[in-house]
Amino acid sequence: MTAALNENIALVLHKIDDLRLEPVPINEPNDGEVLLEMQSVGICGSDVHYWKRGCIGDFVVRAPMILGHESAGKVIKVGPNVKNLKEGDRVTIEPGVPCRRCDFCKVGRYNLCADVVFLATPPVHGSIARYHTHAADFCFKLPDHVTYEEGAFCEPLSVGVHACRRAGVTIGSKVFITGAGPIGLVSMLAAKAMGADTIIMTDISQQRLDFAKKIGANHVVLADSDSQKTAQLVIETLGSMPNISIECSGAESSIQATFYATISGGVVVLVGLGRPLVSLPIVNAAIREIDIRGVFRYANCYPAALSLIASGRIDVKPMITHRYMINESVQAFEMAESGQAIKVMIQCGNEAQH
Amino acid sequence: MTAALNENIALVLHKIDDLRLEPVPINEPNDGEVLLEMQSVGICGSDVHYWKRGCIGDFVVRAPMILGHESAGKVIKVGPNVKNLKEGDRVTIEPGVPCRRCDFCKVGRYNLCADVVFLATPPVHGSIARYHTHAADFCFKLPDHVTYEEGAFCEPLSVGVHACRRAGVTIGSKVFITGAGPIGLVSMLAAKAMGADTIIMTDISQQRLDFAKKIGANHVVLADSDSQKTAQLVIETLGSMPNISIECSGAESSIQATFYATISGGVVVLVGLGRPLVSLPIVNAAIREIDIRGVFRYANCYPAALSLIASGRIDVKPMITHRYMINESVQAFEMAESGQAIKVMIQCGNEAQH
Amino acid sequence: MTAALNENIALVLHKIDDLRLEPVPINEPNDGEVLLEMQSVGICGSDVHYWKRGCIGDFVVRAPMILGHESAGKVIKVGPNVKNLKEGDRVTIEPGVPCRRCDFCKVGRYNLCADVVFLATPPVHGSIARYHTHAADFCFKLPDHVTYEEGAFCEPLSVGVHACRRAGVTIGSKVFITGAGPIGLVSMLAAKAMGADTIIMTDISQQRLDFAKKIGANHVVLADSDSQKTAQLVIETLGSMPNISIECSGAESSIQATFYATISGGVVVLVGLGRPLVSLPIVNAAIREIDIRGVFRYANCYPAALSLIASGRIDVKPMITHRYMINESVQAFEMAESGQAIKVMIQCGNEAQH
Amino acid sequence: MTAALNENIALVLHKIDDLRLEPVPINEPNDGEVLLEMQSVGICGSDVHYWKRGCIGDFVVRAPMILGHESAGKVIKVGPNVKNLKEGDRVTIEPGVPCRRCDFCKVGRYNLCADVVFLATPPVHGSIARYHTHAADFCFKLPDHVTYEEGAFCEPLSVGVHACRRAGVTIGSKVFITGAGPIGLVSMLAAKAMGADTIIMTDISQQRLDFAKKIGANHVVLADSDSQKTAQLVIETLGSMPNISIECSGAESSIQATFYATISGGVVVLVGLGRPLVSLPIVNAAIREIDIRGVFRYANCYPAALSLIASGRIDVKPMITHRYMINESVQAFEMAESGQAIKVMIQCGNEAQH
Repeated sequence: MTAALNENIALVLHKIDDLRLEPVPINEPNDGEVLLEMQSVGICGSDVHYWKRGCIGDFVVRAPMILGHESAGKVIKVGPNVKNLKEGDRVTIEPGVPCRRCDFCKVGRYNLCADVVFLATPPVHGSIARYHTHAADFCFKLPDHVTYEEGAFCEPLSVGVHACRRAGVTIGSKVFITGAGPIGLVSMLAAKAMGADTIIMTDISQQRLDFAKKIGANHVVLADSDSQKTAQLVIETLGSMPNISIECSGAESSIQATFYATISGGVVVLVGLGRPLVSLPIVNAAIREIDIRGVFRYANCYPAALSLIASGRIDVKPMITHRYMINESVQAFEMAESGQAIKVMIQCGNEAQH
Repeated sequence: MTAALNENIALVLHKIDDLRLEPVPINEPNDGEVLLEMQSVGICGSDVHYWKRGCIGDFVVRAPMILGHESAGKVIKVGPNVKNLKEGDRVTIEPGVPCRRCDFCKVGRYNLCADVVFLATPPVHGSIARYHTHAADFCFKLPDHVTYEEGAFCEPLSVGVHACRRAGVTIGSKVFITGAGPIGLVSMLAAKAMGADTIIMTDISQQRLDFAKKIGANHVVLADSDSQKTAQLVIETLGSMPNISIECSGAESSIQATFYATISGGVVVLVGLGRPLVSLPIVNAAIREIDIRGVFRYANCYPAALSLIASGRIDVKPMITHRYMINESVQAFEMAESGQAIKVMIQCGNEAQH
Repeated sequence: MTAALNENIALVLHKIDDLRLEPVPINEPNDGEVLLEMQSVGICGSDVHYWKRGCIGDFVVRAPMILGHESAGKVIKVGPNVKNLKEGDRVTIEPGVPCRRCDFCKVGRYNLCADVVFLATPPVHGSIARYHTHAADFCFKLPDHVTYEEGAFCEPLSVGVHACRRAGVTIGSKVFITGAGPIGLVSMLAAKAMGADTIIMTDISQQRLDFAKKIGANHVVLADSDSQKTAQLVIETLGSMPNISIECSGAESSIQATFYATISGGVVVLVGLGRPLVSLPIVNAAIREIDIRGVFRYANCYPAALSLIASGRIDVKPMITHRYMINESVQAFEMAESGQAIKVMIQCGNEAQH
Repeated sequence: MTAALNENIALVLHKIDDLRLEPVPINEPNDGEVLLEMQSVGICGSDVHYWKRGCIGDFVVRAPMILGHESAGKVIKVGPNVKNLKEGDRVTIEPGVPCRRCDFCKVGRYNLCADVVFLATPPVHGSIARYHTHAADFCFKLPDHVTYEEGAFCEPLSVGVHACRRAGVTIGSKVFITGAGPIGLVSMLAAKAMGADTIIMTDISQQRLDFAKKIGANHVVLADSDSQKTAQLVIETLGSMPNISIECSGAESSIQATFYATISGGVVVLVGLGRPLVSLPIVNAAIREIDIRGVFRYANCYPAALSLIASGRIDVKPMITHRYMINESVQAFEMAESGQAIKVMIQCGNEAQH
């Protein structure tokens, strides 16, 4: 890195509804870290949630925090003991760096590590900034033809990949996905890439369903408020009970619908989060030996997600509907909150983004 | 079989509260079947339930039905094409014979077969009788030193084995079992046999807990009506969160307690059946990636259950608390219903039973 | 079935090099069976092997035997207790019907059943005939748009599906396949359908490799006689060690190459069969924890194979290079033996085949 | 740590046959490390091998190296950022500390990490010394009643645990173990603890077999030089084919015997290491879908191994046949090399060892 660094600026959430673009320091890369010039950062529902509610469950914003965790950037300085990267490398950034020492880390389920440092989860700063330091082994080199925006999209796609891996999607799978928002969509794309026979999606918005169908869902069905009726519609449309259901809405009626619709011996994966206590037909699921599996972020999914994008097996570009410069970040968040966008991208750096 | 058969008698449930010992025909063994002189039959909670309620869920007793499905007997006649058994063999009887042709049967999960013929599940007759015909490949030869009563006990033990297999119990497992009735007890014994490090059980009866501890539970805790408090007690007593919980009570508060107590990445197996809709902290379980798995009967568990008994690794005898002759069957059911017994055995034949 | 049946004729292997088209009886469908008017039957390497060698391993042709087991036909008569099929249904035929009663059948690995009745494996007759009876649950209904030839192709494709399932192919997989004959090709197609990142194939024939590349292989490499050199070429071309290798040639040097090439913790699946005793670098594989898994036919693969073809995810048509009428069967076998064909199809009936 | 440290001495291998007890420095514990006063260290066959041969495969002793990796000690100083241990803790030491950053580490198979630092594997020093520093998260606290010698025995026992986990030993397993040396014995003990039905062992030494039977093997059989004959003897003695075989001898004929003996669909685990190229009946294994799995050390096995010892489910004490003080280390190695001992323990510190 020969050129002088610009000043660092970042999008800082001070408290509910108080989001400011302001100067922040530039950190030096520690042992095993790299300093990155940030390029593309996508806005996630959780970013909007912190902005508007100040918390997600037990995670409460108590001090000013930089937002953003779906990100890609360019390596501009390499800390000690980094072997996998060099200056100039374009990378996608896996946002959660675990402790590497607890039982969860040792068995490969590092997403469950209690001491994980995850971008834009209080009290950890996120990546909507000009510069950001990160563990080098949680940065993955982008092939030349993969854009920064696509790199940033590896984050939500990893959620879909993890959900589908937890579900065991493969050839022969008939997959029912509830909720056609970004997470439902990436789960659908991941399921297709993993060989699913057929995918049926439900939502309460016909517009979202139309988009889902356009980019790959085999069938779409408007969800009924009666969960048994929705299940029935899904089964009729599919011609059989799905053997895998992926719940991405968090709605009680949708969770119920997955329980009713899934074939005996099948799997329900819960990705969406809703109210703490939910009324569920658990006996129905239990005596039919349906496995119910939750999802918390992802582990070991970035390489596969990146490969899916790089090879063209998954095209995430149609989901990027809006773009803003970093100094327009507040407007970007307003758009994300409006519900009109699928994925809003913020451009933090000066490299070509897409 | 040279000697003439006695008349067949059986314990027939005509309708709720109407249980009669009466003559029934003796069937000829069909292709692949054997005719058995029944010896020991245990009474299951489901037998009592049909007697007192007339149904379990969608299974309704609409015509007179012989009760009993935990059974062992002696082969007295061999039908065509039976190779694994001969006259005189003493056997334990796996009560559910599947269709062998559907997808569930073909993939080895025959307990989910929609066309399974399961003893004493309406409209199929059970085995509390002098004579009974059964598919030979669902009869397993007892070693000489294994008693008929132990043979009959393979049935509930298979439930425990299946629950522990679904849970993945092995060395290193810290297992939390809710409910210290017969199913909780056999699950505990199976978990120990599979190498579990420690087993902690809860119940609302101190007497049942005392018995559980006597026959093998490492720790017992009286359940609190507050599920979070029960979970806390379990964790404190165990010194850590269990990684496997096996719910055998069917109570909403117990299911909740398993969700709260189980460590992230762990497994909850649901064996007990309760109300159709249950209020559950599903988000808590989902974001901690707890797998929730139901259990319906068992598949491929009889050989292991029998081997556990035959080798002495599991001793089921202390659980057999009461014995009746077949002509005392109604009293046997009254005892089973009283709650004073753990396992009540009915002697149907004249061979030594224990 | 109102119309009178034609006389049945079949292709009967009498002894080595003695293949005759001759009249055979028409069987009545037994319980659970259907009578089929055969349409398309593909020629497998094993059919040619029996013709030219008279045996495969312990399976020796001792009496006249009809050849053929890759087949599709039309249901013209339904035996007792058949529910899944009716007259007129077009079906693909899974050729191996297991005993349904042994431990292997009960756990879902029916391909290992010692009493399986498998078409054209001595002493069981095959399906190159006008009429054939078969277990109805081992016949799978073809959608209208799927041709009989495609139906027949479900058989070799099922081998590929089973191999890839045993290997655990999914997204992220880098797959090395040795041998670009029909089985190598269907394994490659199955691997792609299951989401493999990249597939590299080796063979000693550049022509076969060119074809493999044309229909989907990402990379092809001419095999070297030195297995370590082949492994090195594969790793260099792929840019990394494959994590899955599927050996489809049976050659000692190819098996060795898979051991040397596969990354630590990876999987080698052995599909090809060669000499009984083979010299292998087993310590190299063992200390790198490479799992070595054999393949014997397939179990529960037909539905997925058929769905892959029906949905267009796999196109098997380019592999069908030659077609003959049943009365030209001997010429068909000569073509199959010549090595010029990829897949030779025999038309047994009068329906449209492709 | 208030008292002054003694001088450090260690058992250093200078070159083949040149083993010296000599002074070495005491290291300060780095970040995440502890300084240990070593207590018990067992001698492994690999230690003897380095002493007598100077190498194992590609691992060559090129510079003086301290031997020993089966060890337990007392924490006497805690480095920065250590939370799980404090001064005075008695611990068993997992000898291999991986890089924590590579793909193998991230997926939980850290034993395959190419950059693992493993005690007494060139060029890494071992632990036969008065003082040794180690990563705190690879030290496991011993309960008060577990001796240091038992702690040290967690190392070989972890190999047995890993082998049995790779094999999938559980209730119902019939296990065939070749080789009744220390690794065969710990595999046998682990298999029993994991619920195996029956264990049969072979060896060429009747004395070793007698000992194996004494401490738990159900059956023992003297191995024949003809591998098929050995397999036949095993099957006859067991009354059936084993479904799991664990090869602990490294002999070609033993590996062959496991292939011939194991039932279709079963598993062979290779623990023993022999010649680089071995002649194997791989087709026999492949067409019977026997899975062949290697073992390299272990990952995530120490907690289970320690729990097995602490609870008394496994008693390792009978295997400790000889004990020496650290200043008698060379004699200890001579005894270990003589073949008269099962496990030789070296006492490095002054605490009670057993």
